[in-house]
Amino acid sequence: MSYFRLRFIMYKAKVTIGLKKGVSDPEGANTLKALKLLGFDNVQEAKTIRTVDLLINGKSKDDVKKSVERMCQRLLINPVIHNYKIEIKEK
Amino acid sequence: MSYFRLRFIMYKAKVTIGLKKGVSDPEGANTLKALKLLGFDNVQEAKTIRTVDLLINGKSKDDVKKSVERMCQRLLINPVIHNYKIEIKEK
Repeated sequence: MSYFRLRFIMYKAKVTIGLKKGVSDPEGANTLKALKLLGFDNVQEAKTIRTVDLLINGKSKDDVKKSVERMCQRLLINPVIHNYKIEIKEK
Repeated sequence: MSYFRLRFIMYKAKVTIGLKKGVSDPEGANTLKALKLLGFDNVQEAKTIRTVDLLINGKSKDDVKKSVERMCQRLLINPVIHNYKIEIKEK
């Protein structure tokens, strides 16, 4: 167990998932509409962004980044409509 | 029109909406489960956070912050389950 603890470090990964340019954002559009209906006429634009925060074990920052990259490709994002940004911090 | 432009400045407001402690996060839990099923055993925790980016006109930063605070109370968040953070930047 102590061997495991020595080799692996806990990292915090933040994956910010936004929509690509030109992809419609119905949630944002409806938020904007509702805000205007409530009388907030000063709002010009509303966009929604999703963030996934992960706690993850790894040998190094690079190692964890590669792993999170694979997670994005396989599950977290849809490459047709999303762009994403990965930030890794040691916990 | 030029008068309007002189008085009002465009601000970017970022509202980060997370879940309060103890509130279940089914989306995060399912993400974690799916990642484990895909073989990513190094993930310990997954949490989802929603962000709303607003473009908004205002006289001052304080003015805009108060306005966004009201938007949160009236539409963007549910005070029973969400906590939120507002960041305002000049555009």
